[in-house]
Amino acid sequence: MQFKQSNHMKDEKDGPASSGLVLGIDMGGTHTAYAVVGDKGDIIARGSLDTTASPTFDRFIDDLYDSVVETLKTVNLDIKDLRAIGVGAPCVNHSSGVIEGAVDLPWPSPLPLTYKLSNRFNIPAAADNDANAAALGEMYYGVCRNVENFIMITLGTGVGSAIVCDGRLLHGKRGLAGELGHTLIRRDSGRPCSCGRYGCLETYASARGVARTAREYLETLNAPSPLRDLKEITAKDVGEAADKGDLIASETFRYTGKILGDACADFAAFSSPEAIVFFGGVAHSFRHFEPAMREAFQRNLLWIYNNQIRFFQSGLPEADAALLGAAAVGRALIS
Amino acid sequence: MQFKQSNHMKDEKDGPASSGLVLGIDMGGTHTAYAVVGDKGDIIARGSLDTTASPTFDRFIDDLYDSVVETLKTVNLDIKDLRAIGVGAPCVNHSSGVIEGAVDLPWPSPLPLTYKLSNRFNIPAAADNDANAAALGEMYYGVCRNVENFIMITLGTGVGSAIVCDGRLLHGKRGLAGELGHTLIRRDSGRPCSCGRYGCLETYASARGVARTAREYLETLNAPSPLRDLKEITAKDVGEAADKGDLIASETFRYTGKILGDACADFAAFSSPEAIVFFGGVAHSFRHFEPAMREAFQRNLLWIYNNQIRFFQSGLPEADAALLGAAAVGRALIS
Repeated sequence: MQFKQSNHMKDEKDGPASSGLVLGIDMGGTHTAYAVVGDKGDIIARGSLDTTASPTFDRFIDDLYDSVVETLKTVNLDIKDLRAIGVGAPCVNHSSGVIEGAVDLPWPSPLPLTYKLSNRFNIPAAADNDANAAALGEMYYGVCRNVENFIMITLGTGVGSAIVCDGRLLHGKRGLAGELGHTLIRRDSGRPCSCGRYGCLETYASARGVARTAREYLETLNAPSPLRDLKEITAKDVGEAADKGDLIASETFRYTGKILGDACADFAAFSSPEAIVFFGGVAHSFRHFEPAMREAFQRNLLWIYNNQIRFFQSGLPEADAALLGAAAVGRALIS
Repeated sequence: MQFKQSNHMKDEKDGPASSGLVLGIDMGGTHTAYAVVGDKGDIIARGSLDTTASPTFDRFIDDLYDSVVETLKTVNLDIKDLRAIGVGAPCVNHSSGVIEGAVDLPWPSPLPLTYKLSNRFNIPAAADNDANAAALGEMYYGVCRNVENFIMITLGTGVGSAIVCDGRLLHGKRGLAGELGHTLIRRDSGRPCSCGRYGCLETYASARGVARTAREYLETLNAPSPLRDLKEITAKDVGEAADKGDLIASETFRYTGKILGDACADFAAFSSPEAIVFFGGVAHSFRHFEPAMREAFQRNLLWIYNNQIRFFQSGLPEADAALLGAAAVGRALIS
């Protein structure tokens, strides 16, 4: 395809209109946290319960309901003040709201999560996986307000992602869109990935990938480094060493940035984003990998996307990111 | 991200409901063709005019209107029987309907195409580029009816693409989503691309890419081949030689298929499609490149997508594909 440059820019729409309080639930195998969240991502009340304390899933829904009622009382609210429920949960099918094959939860799957919640609380409920919830969190409460096209990349134990295009989160067949951590960034002699293949982005840009890169530099470079004294190196250690100007750590993030920049240039050609947002543990070292990422990105980018795509570190406060993401899943129901 | 397998499949929705006659316009620099298209992609009437015969763009809209009125008369219809207009046009901004920087057209840009059409015909009008129009054509009239998630790849002079996810065609910022022909399939020693970079999918899978691969095999393999007698080799020549069992041509498509399979495995991780559809000149040789493509695809595919993605050759009759694609752009307005 041939390209002519155009200066036409779409008008940016205003942010979502005010829509009321939402209950965000971050559901985990041992612990479930929830928060009552206002329009701007303000947490009005919060609570939690022990997931394993409920002998059955139905009982868990009741226990959660009771806990939420008590929490609401402390701020002079009640269930009727809530407009929707959003859940971030493992192994949940977004379109059906059913949890399937979640071995971490104490009850046998399938669990009709949103159906039960919606019935018990008498308001609409939706659920999505963590990366998608985080992207919606950025869209409603974070750095991507008013951004209709962006990609969120979560750099944690693995590399997850979520894609928002034309103002909508992409789900795709069976909700499996946006597994960008498993695109192949090295086709020859790539690192082995937990998925069974070689050269996935995840093997380079995840916390484990960063630690591996650091170990490789420790072997191939002679520079002194506090990382040499550690028995096991984590991405957090590498980040802290980079904060102090350590060469090995800096080189590690330079390499990580190069890989991410190469990958992001291809991602741009898919959904034409306005922003790419990084979230998760490794994203704390954003300032260390950003320069090399930008350089590799620009070198690999098709020119039609020039000056169109910004890089951001997540704007969600980390301690509450999962709750805000979950709340955003509910918020999307009523916006 | 870790994966649990799920057997849950989303119910397939029924096809778009019956919605009436649409005018599809395939607008080119010298020639503009149009067709009146029924719900099932049946062409009820057609006509054309010389684009360059109209001294101004406004006059072109009038001339087109008059021509359509005359054509409709021949089948006892009139303008009031049309529900919408769709246009496939070069350099058109889908969201504004404005043509910008189209050097092939005889009038200076910008041209407010859909605004003028909509005013003159008094029905809604929309326009999109060729690859997007082709994808909508498949969605309404071709092999992707009832398919909510698919990728269309056009293998012609260049390699274009269009992505349908969750039942919607992706546009992205400035309508530039889906430039998969310019993702890098070879990061080291890739072929030079017209975009100025190296290793783009287009340099391998376009008609020119196929011809280049054939020339390379003619140099490196000793097998006899009718292609050796040609002064200039085209992808069509290679396709015809492959039809006759020529080894050089077969190897050329095997290589093309391998490259396409590698690329499609990464595309799957983006939008989780149910189908990948090939269109354009090189797609005529689908049966020659399909086996190697499938093999490379399967070898590179993340397992969560196993048995989920089908490959198709376009189902649109080639001579009318552009008109049907254009009609589908209009059809999307009223579905």
